[in-house]
Amino acid sequence: MNILVVGANGQIGKHLVKLIQENGDQARAFIRKQEQADYFKDLGAEVTVANLEDEVDTIAEAAEGVDAVVFTAGSGGSTGKDKTLMIDLDGAVKTIQAAEKANVKRFVMISSFDTSREAIQSAPESFAPYVVAKHYADEWLIDTDLDYTIIHPGLLTNEPGTNQVNLGADVERGEVPREDIAKVIYTSLKNDTTIGKSFRAVGGETPIEEAVQSVNS
Amino acid sequence: MNILVVGANGQIGKHLVKLIQENGDQARAFIRKQEQADYFKDLGAEVTVANLEDEVDTIAEAAEGVDAVVFTAGSGGSTGKDKTLMIDLDGAVKTIQAAEKANVKRFVMISSFDTSREAIQSAPESFAPYVVAKHYADEWLIDTDLDYTIIHPGLLTNEPGTNQVNLGADVERGEVPREDIAKVIYTSLKNDTTIGKSFRAVGGETPIEEAVQSVNS
Repeated sequence: MNILVVGANGQIGKHLVKLIQENGDQARAFIRKQEQADYFKDLGAEVTVANLEDEVDTIAEAAEGVDAVVFTAGSGGSTGKDKTLMIDLDGAVKTIQAAEKANVKRFVMISSFDTSREAIQSAPESFAPYVVAKHYADEWLIDTDLDYTIIHPGLLTNEPGTNQVNLGADVERGEVPREDIAKVIYTSLKNDTTIGKSFRAVGGETPIEEAVQSVNS
Repeated sequence: MNILVVGANGQIGKHLVKLIQENGDQARAFIRKQEQADYFKDLGAEVTVANLEDEVDTIAEAAEGVDAVVFTAGSGGSTGKDKTLMIDLDGAVKTIQAAEKANVKRFVMISSFDTSREAIQSAPESFAPYVVAKHYADEWLIDTDLDYTIIHPGLLTNEPGTNQVNLGADVERGEVPREDIAKVIYTSLKNDTTIGKSFRAVGGETPIEEAVQSVNS
């Protein structure tokens, strides 16, 4: 399986590329800067240097020939709200359109824990725009014909993975290591039962393989 | 005809409410602050005080019983990009959802001159997020079953109206008085031939009534 990881240089992205390579699949790391390439090349991953503010055609070229696209990019907490619009919303939608253009059917979106209309209303003022951006990106994806999976992670930590999670549409908010989210993504790509599903992912008691296979959405 | 004007306290909104009242129709001004009410009450308009950051249900209450909704609100140039997301995108979509909820079929959206994917790519960095927000609001509306008209005005001025415009999908960028845009809106509401159309509006040579009746999109 050949997988384009958009946002590869993020912490989830790095775990994910490593996991893909270690399991005998082929990752293509979508990164912004050439100087970020070494980590991925050392793992045997392909590298494509591009930018989510580029045109859809450019992003589509990066997706040429892969079996799946994972969107795990984020504008980051330190950027302004302009980047929230340009990356978390428009960058996500352009990546979706690029997948369609490159005839890649499988798409995994890393969303935010709760992107519902209610979550927008109840979010603190500084966080609400981010929820809005993720809400519309998720809605756009659901409205396509792509084989999507939308993963809504809890509070991300840098703790080592435990390989144990709780997944589901209604699980309570909780922490979850980024390393475990990477494994949930990879396992979702390997399980077509996750197609058309949106689910939350937090730390828990169920081995990831088992949790993914039986997830409800 | 009973028309809810969302963003009534803006300059286009004020012209529009006046025009509606002067022509024997009934405007309902959707304003944010009670102290903005006098101008509208003096014209004989109804007033509803609410906020586009409120829930859809609250906005739907404001739309109860009208025949059409006009969205001419904008976050304004002096606000941050967070308000671009909350008002120009999410506020617009919530207004659309409110119209659906209140069973109001007719919807006129005041958009930006060019909200295409190409316009996002070529916009100056500071302006692109606004174009993104308007792009997704327009796309959302087009995807509904509402009887929409999307008006893309040129560079807005405070000059007195001339009653002459150029309308169409491909007209060149140019200035246009806000007073004329108000009249284009009102005339569009009176001409069902504009339903399902998106067109630009700039200052020109054709009387507004005639231009609206023959507009292409």
